[in-house]
Amino acid sequence: MFKTSFTIEWGDCDEAGIAFYPNYFYWLDCSFQRLLRARGLSQREVRKRFGAVTPITQAHADFTAPARYDDVLDIEVRVALDGERRFRVDYDFRSGGKRIGSGHEIRAWALIGVDGAIKGAPVNAEFMSMLVPAS
Amino acid sequence: MFKTSFTIEWGDCDEAGIAFYPNYFYWLDCSFQRLLRARGLSQREVRKRFGAVTPITQAHADFTAPARYDDVLDIEVRVALDGERRFRVDYDFRSGGKRIGSGHEIRAWALIGVDGAIKGAPVNAEFMSMLVPAS
Amino acid sequence: MFKTSFTIEWGDCDEAGIAFYPNYFYWLDCSFQRLLRARGLSQREVRKRFGAVTPITQAHADFTAPARYDDVLDIEVRVALDGERRFRVDYDFRSGGKRIGSGHEIRAWALIGVDGAIKGAPVNAEFMSMLVPAS
Amino acid sequence: MFKTSFTIEWGDCDEAGIAFYPNYFYWLDCSFQRLLRARGLSQREVRKRFGAVTPITQAHADFTAPARYDDVLDIEVRVALDGERRFRVDYDFRSGGKRIGSGHEIRAWALIGVDGAIKGAPVNAEFMSMLVPAS
Repeated sequence: MFKTSFTIEWGDCDEAGIAFYPNYFYWLDCSFQRLLRARGLSQREVRKRFGAVTPITQAHADFTAPARYDDVLDIEVRVALDGERRFRVDYDFRSGGKRIGSGHEIRAWALIGVDGAIKGAPVNAEFMSMLVPAS
Repeated sequence: MFKTSFTIEWGDCDEAGIAFYPNYFYWLDCSFQRLLRARGLSQREVRKRFGAVTPITQAHADFTAPARYDDVLDIEVRVALDGERRFRVDYDFRSGGKRIGSGHEIRAWALIGVDGAIKGAPVNAEFMSMLVPAS
Repeated sequence: MFKTSFTIEWGDCDEAGIAFYPNYFYWLDCSFQRLLRARGLSQREVRKRFGAVTPITQAHADFTAPARYDDVLDIEVRVALDGERRFRVDYDFRSGGKRIGSGHEIRAWALIGVDGAIKGAPVNAEFMSMLVPAS
Repeated sequence: MFKTSFTIEWGDCDEAGIAFYPNYFYWLDCSFQRLLRARGLSQREVRKRFGAVTPITQAHADFTAPARYDDVLDIEVRVALDGERRFRVDYDFRSGGKRIGSGHEIRAWALIGVDGAIKGAPVNAEFMSMLVPAS
């Protein structure tokens, strides 16, 4: 499991003083990028090392309590295979120790061909082993 | 059904030249606001007329093809009750006539008390009739 | 002169119910992109036709009155040379017929070399004539 | 002087792979909010303690070199009075030890009246002393 945090900034909130919900998806994507970085990867490194990109096919979030300006949003990230050609990233949202929601992304594994076009393929095993800690 | 459109702007795209996915949720929210406006409502008017807010409890999107800089994103919006105290807003994404994805929001109906606290309640029937066209 | 408009959306406003100021710069950039588009250009077309990009070197805005949720922001755009190698884009902000601020961007003209590196150069005359209407 | 840092995330970059410039203004605003927080204040606390808000009247940035995905942006913040009723917040942008730009905001001091309307007033001396370290 990987943990990361964001502070809810003034510009992240709407008129009701609570975090505007599309921002959560920005934080999901950032959390995934930070996980890559923590494992010595990045979108660019994935492209260079594996010749692949990870296009998103599904994004989802459930909100049970709001986060407000100045709150710290703690996110826990877990990665698992979802079939042969996709992986799923699960996110838990906490603030002040309380669970306030959850979400997930489903991402495909796609190889970049010589013509620049991308094509779905089985998720690279080395990539998965870098993101999923051995039990 | 309500239709609205957005042009994918330069700043909406990521390094891969495709619309950065959290922006879709901004467009979902904007589409809902535009629907309210088209029916003579707004977040402020809902608060004033019904003493209510519509907090989001779930957001979801499926992406089947990317949208790129300068593409026009056409969104179709449909609203329906989801139980007694919630309503669901469904969104269809099209670009260049082709379906490129879909999404939904689930929103609760919550009354604002005299102390400012909000409390779930059955969705107001007049509100629903304004958003859902008679068949 | 080129005119374009934006509706201030719920997610564009901060807790005080007024448009969060960094969004104005998103609207400035969008206005410039829309001007390009109105003249048959785009960032990609500029790259293709002139082998050039237009990196921003300065951005500025003065705010005299706020814009609020649901307000329409009307922006007037004017382009002029600023020295030999730069051009300036001026923006006037109006809402409800009232002037509420102004801003500008200064953009450099930079040619893309065979190695992908960019290098400042005199602004292309054809490009300028497409953006600046003859008097 | 106050220092803070941001990592340039995937979603902060445009198709050219460099930070989309309106995001810098989001970071300026965040830096100011973080400075307030570091001094035991916040927008809400300023409102509560001083009955005041700090509306922005000018924002400006000069860009000398781009920041890219995964770069760390270090921002130095300095606050000074600008006349009697305004204060100026200066920002220096560095990345990898190199100066890549600078910016500033001018903010007014405005008291909130009993009717909710705001009115310009001399900047509160206690507020200023909290933001400007004694020499």
